Amino acid sequence: KYFSAAVIPGDGIGPEVMEVGMSLLQAIGDIHGGLSFEAESFPWNCRYYLQHGRMMPEDGLERLRPFDVILLGAIGAPGVPDHISVWELILPIRRSFQQYVNLRPIKLLRGLESPLRGKGHEHLDFVVVRENTEGEYSNMGGRLHVGTPYEMAMQNNVFTRYGTERIIRYAFELAQATGKTRLTAATKSNGINHSMPFWDEIVKEISLHYPNIQTSLIHIDALAAFFVSRPEAFDVVVASNLFGDILTDLGAAVVGGLGLAPSGNINPEKTYPSMFEPIHGSAPDIAGRGIANPIATIWSISMMLDHLGERELGRLVLDCIEEVLVEGKVRTPDIGGKATTQEMGKAILAQLYRR
Amino acid sequence: KYFSAAVIPGDGIGPEVMEVGMSLLQAIGDIHGGLSFEAESFPWNCRYYLQHGRMMPEDGLERLRPFDVILLGAIGAPGVPDHISVWELILPIRRSFQQYVNLRPIKLLRGLESPLRGKGHEHLDFVVVRENTEGEYSNMGGRLHVGTPYEMAMQNNVFTRYGTERIIRYAFELAQATGKTRLTAATKSNGINHSMPFWDEIVKEISLHYPNIQTSLIHIDALAAFFVSRPEAFDVVVASNLFGDILTDLGAAVVGGLGLAPSGNINPEKTYPSMFEPIHGSAPDIAGRGIANPIATIWSISMMLDHLGERELGRLVLDCIEEVLVEGKVRTPDIGGKATTQEMGKAILAQLYRR
Ligand SMILES: CC(C)[C@H](C(=O)O)[C@@H](O)C(=O)O
Ligand SMILES: CC(C)[C@H](C(=O)O)[C@@H](O)C(=O)O
Repeated sequence: KYFSAAVIPGDGIGPEVMEVGMSLLQAIGDIHGGLSFEAESFPWNCRYYLQHGRMMPEDGLERLRPFDVILLGAIGAPGVPDHISVWELILPIRRSFQQYVNLRPIKLLRGLESPLRGKGHEHLDFVVVRENTEGEYSNMGGRLHVGTPYEMAMQNNVFTRYGTERIIRYAFELAQATGKTRLTAATKSNGINHSMPFWDEIVKEISLHYPNIQTSLIHIDALAAFFVSRPEAFDVVVASNLFGDILTDLGAAVVGGLGLAPSGNINPEKTYPSMFEPIHGSAPDIAGRGIANPIATIWSISMMLDHLGERELGRLVLDCIEEVLVEGKVRTPDIGGKATTQEMGKAILAQLYRR
Repeated sequence: KYFSAAVIPGDGIGPEVMEVGMSLLQAIGDIHGGLSFEAESFPWNCRYYLQHGRMMPEDGLERLRPFDVILLGAIGAPGVPDHISVWELILPIRRSFQQYVNLRPIKLLRGLESPLRGKGHEHLDFVVVRENTEGEYSNMGGRLHVGTPYEMAMQNNVFTRYGTERIIRYAFELAQATGKTRLTAATKSNGINHSMPFWDEIVKEISLHYPNIQTSLIHIDALAAFFVSRPEAFDVVVASNLFGDILTDLGAAVVGGLGLAPSGNINPEKTYPSMFEPIHGSAPDIAGRGIANPIATIWSISMMLDHLGERELGRLVLDCIEEVLVEGKVRTPDIGGKATTQEMGKAILAQLYRR
């Protein structure tokens, strides 16, 4: 089999971790005779923006469209406002390609310790299903009375039945398919009194079709606290765009940090390419030093393999990450070692060849 | 001196913890000859709603208006949607009385251990200044195409220059007055592209007047992660209504739980009464069992004393809480003991009489 991958290394540490990602694609072809990736790299990032006045060419989306998958490093650089770099690259991809599921495992890998006292692997293993196309990230809104004391900004959160149903249904289906019994939906219907009660209604409606799954609606404030105090209470968590964003960075912190956390921006129907990316940003503070952790990228590629139907291979890649962590000899600084990005990547690739 | 307090015990564990609160007001009068409280109790809660079809009488706000302060237990009960109980009681009070500052200390008390490995008292001592009157809790919005597949809900986030400036200025003033050097503003201007860039602009404008304070804007997702990975990085955190809500529940979790976390809804100009309340909810699951932790309420009363200018007394109350915790004999179940609400309250009151 043959898959095509569009690779957007991006800014800051993005290219550094993506270099490891590219070697991994190569290695997969090497060890698995019947599978290969053709990767094409796209130089769309903040430097590109400063040269061309846009984050990607006018036909950027059309050029990505034919690929099976997209791999993204990280986007964002000092000097380019985030609401430009993100709104002209990441968000248009997520939306145009109907990647309405942002899948983010919160799992403490073997070999690592949680910063939470008394919480081990058995307490930290769940998945967050984040809505990825609407909600609080709507780009609808604006300002009035600019430059006067009466100036104001308005931002609209838009929740459609269509968009809400499909993400909640996906979360229930995922719970069912993976034999999980508990689904938690993040809400804030006590404070946010139009969109969130609507969200709650749809959660309740859909839950009726899944009588074997125990459904709870928990306010985002309490839920954030529970991620610290009782993370073992969760199997599948479904959340709006913003709430999912917050919960998954927090989740990453409780399982050892952003250097590890992967994500998939998934179009479940496979009508369009899905995109896989580490959830960390471009980290300008450590960019160029070659010390970023490539595990989030490697794990994202493992999720990509799952998505492509190569579950065994996906599992193997994740196993190799864990085996190297258990051995404990090679670690980047964020997880307590002194290894470089390249050394960490090589150790995992070596493990892959050994298996 | 004489102060008047309107007391709204509310629902669930609210009345249980507020009973301790009332004894504390009494005790303060006893030990401090020159000070007394006249407390009047108001039975406005979900039971009241079920009887009268509203959370408080039509002239409820007028009746609260003359008091120096308001003490609230907790609001919310199964059977009454939160967006009613909250929107007809707590939120109108916060808004009508221009309690635009929601002040929430995140501080690990002596005698307690953080659930975060390796984080002690020296790492966990900051304050969150939450905007309390506008932003994401705007009640502006609605639905369209109800009952069709095209149904949608819209919710407007409203950020005014007036509302944003006053909360950010308050946060800087607080930092300055308390000798703190770092101010962190929560944002999400990379994803939320109208209101949050506006917020950022105002933070930057105001920061120019405080050259001695080191100001950072951090995205809410990263900030939530930092509350776990490096809470020692914060002195004063200023956040919008929703972000402050999420951060403070999370903050409560990292310093030992919601049973401890106090808050003040403050009208700094003292034109209107300010309101003090534990940040926990009515906790229907443990209501009626007499095991709720009254410390959040007692600490809220300590904050109330600060607000009334009785800082020494406020400090004394907080000291007594800590002394009882350090002794460690009396603890409610949420902090690892077997004491009842009453026993916990009595131990702290006894300490107050001893001092
Ligand atoms: C009850 C609810 C609306 C409220 C809020 O979100 O403001 C509560 O969570 C709080 O933090 O005081
Ligand atoms: C860059 C930013 C807009 C983005 C988001 O909030 O979606 C990032 O934080 C993420 O989680 O992928």
